[in-house]
Amino acid sequence: MTANVHTLRLGESVTDLKRSVMRDLLALAVDPEVISLAGGLPASELLPVGEIALCLAAVLERDGARALQYSPPLEPLRRWIANHMASRGVPCGPEDIFITNGAQQGLAILSRLFLDRGETCVIERVTFTGIQQVTAGRGAQVTAISTDSASGADIDELEAALRRDPRPRLVVLVPDFHNPLGVSLTSQKRARAAALAAEYGVPLLEDDPYAALRFRGDPSPPIKAFDEAGFVFYVGSFSKMLAPATRLGWIVATPELIPKITVMRESLDLETSTLTQRGVCEFLERGLLTPHLVRLNAENRLRCEALQEALLHEFDGLASWTEPQGGIFLWLTLPETVDTWELFPEAVAQKVAYIPGSAFTLDGSHRNTMRLNFSNARPEAIRLGLARLGQVVRAQL
Amino acid sequence: MTANVHTLRLGESVTDLKRSVMRDLLALAVDPEVISLAGGLPASELLPVGEIALCLAAVLERDGARALQYSPPLEPLRRWIANHMASRGVPCGPEDIFITNGAQQGLAILSRLFLDRGETCVIERVTFTGIQQVTAGRGAQVTAISTDSASGADIDELEAALRRDPRPRLVVLVPDFHNPLGVSLTSQKRARAAALAAEYGVPLLEDDPYAALRFRGDPSPPIKAFDEAGFVFYVGSFSKMLAPATRLGWIVATPELIPKITVMRESLDLETSTLTQRGVCEFLERGLLTPHLVRLNAENRLRCEALQEALLHEFDGLASWTEPQGGIFLWLTLPETVDTWELFPEAVAQKVAYIPGSAFTLDGSHRNTMRLNFSNARPEAIRLGLARLGQVVRAQL
Repeated sequence: MTANVHTLRLGESVTDLKRSVMRDLLALAVDPEVISLAGGLPASELLPVGEIALCLAAVLERDGARALQYSPPLEPLRRWIANHMASRGVPCGPEDIFITNGAQQGLAILSRLFLDRGETCVIERVTFTGIQQVTAGRGAQVTAISTDSASGADIDELEAALRRDPRPRLVVLVPDFHNPLGVSLTSQKRARAAALAAEYGVPLLEDDPYAALRFRGDPSPPIKAFDEAGFVFYVGSFSKMLAPATRLGWIVATPELIPKITVMRESLDLETSTLTQRGVCEFLERGLLTPHLVRLNAENRLRCEALQEALLHEFDGLASWTEPQGGIFLWLTLPETVDTWELFPEAVAQKVAYIPGSAFTLDGSHRNTMRLNFSNARPEAIRLGLARLGQVVRAQL
Repeated sequence: MTANVHTLRLGESVTDLKRSVMRDLLALAVDPEVISLAGGLPASELLPVGEIALCLAAVLERDGARALQYSPPLEPLRRWIANHMASRGVPCGPEDIFITNGAQQGLAILSRLFLDRGETCVIERVTFTGIQQVTAGRGAQVTAISTDSASGADIDELEAALRRDPRPRLVVLVPDFHNPLGVSLTSQKRARAAALAAEYGVPLLEDDPYAALRFRGDPSPPIKAFDEAGFVFYVGSFSKMLAPATRLGWIVATPELIPKITVMRESLDLETSTLTQRGVCEFLERGLLTPHLVRLNAENRLRCEALQEALLHEFDGLASWTEPQGGIFLWLTLPETVDTWELFPEAVAQKVAYIPGSAFTLDGSHRNTMRLNFSNARPEAIRLGLARLGQVVRAQL
């Protein structure tokens, strides 16, 4: 045996991008003394632990071994999701719903179905790292479009991108309470985005894990609600609106595409736990989601307001920030001379953490920005964290 | 808007292979009057429903919201798995263990890391469809090797395949109680396979979901136990030894490769539910796995014996079959004139189901074979099923 003569050669390897850096940042932020505005976690103290325990116990008592076997997607759960989507203006039935392990798996499956390595896709210049992973991270060419801090993605830029040669093969947009920007796409822009997808024949992937987390203003229908031609594919999730450990999400697609999605998904990890599906379905059918969301969003609103007040106190006239109507993130833009990567070690030394904004760009731009999470720190902690952050920033100016 | 002018164009689309056909077969087999020897399910009546309910309740009571949040891989679970592997002759620590959603996700991740479209891999001619999916199904060229019904994969053929130009980029073998053949690789062959992987510098993926299901004979160490050069990657699973709905498995890799695996996995579906990890870990730490396996394997042995006796009764001198020492499958080879695909509708009409053997080949060969599952039917049902099958086969001869 000629050990160590050969070295491992990797084939298709997803580009690391900024995820691992963020993981390191988050690891720092678990120091209990650090006030973390870095993560993307829902409020731990509001997770419905007791209700989920009751639902799982009820399911195991009632369904027995059926809750632990291999099993096709749970029909009552698909029906609940279809009704939920219909109530949001997307007419659909259970046959249009595909159950996934969270929204990221929806992104992974649909990006693989529509986008090959070397082909072009359109994403927002500042966007969720998971969207970067399934596009640029898989070797796709990216055309980046701007996002307006009040009205969401720039649809004129989207149209210009769709006109280019070679034609993009996929568009990915985040409609509500954008990660990391905290902004939402106006209804008018949603309608136009859906129309453009149809006009240019390019699938549009709508990544929408935050819609249920609205605490101000009026909801807009999903982009999918404006989709007459079947070019919009919706991805939803229970991670933020119920609990991350459900690892449960869904795709709204056409019944013709579901078999393709099924084959792709089976090859990735077979199926979603029927126990989890049954537990979540029990939670939904007992009517527990609405009161949970009322509590969650009321608290998120208080925390967002605490953050905005603290920002005004620390950075009035010095910085600008987005005005989220829901979700869990706000985007802070500091003076051009501030570099939030360079600032980070000092911030952690002063016991406050955030994610540098350039982690959400492919080109490392936006170095004077940061993402602030307001859902997983209490108002008093947010105020204290912002006081620390204000000091750190002013010291650099 | 020019609706319906464009049609959707699919990019990377996993080849369907035989999976959807098998799904249809399995759908037929849910008719409660059909005795199904088709599926790959553990015995429903032996799934530890009460114990899992207690463990989940204990975890939610003790860990509260921490059991429902985003969370890094659970260290005590990685430690338990590392100790388990060490007890099987694979010296490793928690840092070598990566938690997955079942073995299929291990296959999906490692095949993507090592094997690009158009490159060559070596798999067994008759093998699990999930292995076909992550190799041929992703557009890889396949060199198929034979499997001996007593000693497992033909390692001479493996060596010949490894000598070819272009050199294969990946080998996939099933060491224990092979799906669908029910055979195991001898220790000698395992040692040689590991040595060949090192000699030719080709990663060997060991897909081993059944090892804990031994009910006869002496265990062999995993191929990974013979791996001195770090070219063997082991994939295990709790699906068969505990419960499919755990959707929990693991990869044993080198610490250097774990970050690559982590990035790939994050892009696919972020992480495995911490609630599931904690629940399974509780089950393991309470020492419930060993008594469960004792019960399960004793029953599997009875069922396998019932199947073998019934085969002798129905097909003595007419057919041959493998002699499993564990697992859940047996492989039946009928006279050349019998076509098990053609036979299938009549078998279902006579209320017995199996999987035609050619579903497990890429070239549609082995049409006179079938896979018989013995784990999810009671001995009396197996005897009745085989009486029906005997009648159907003899009618065709």
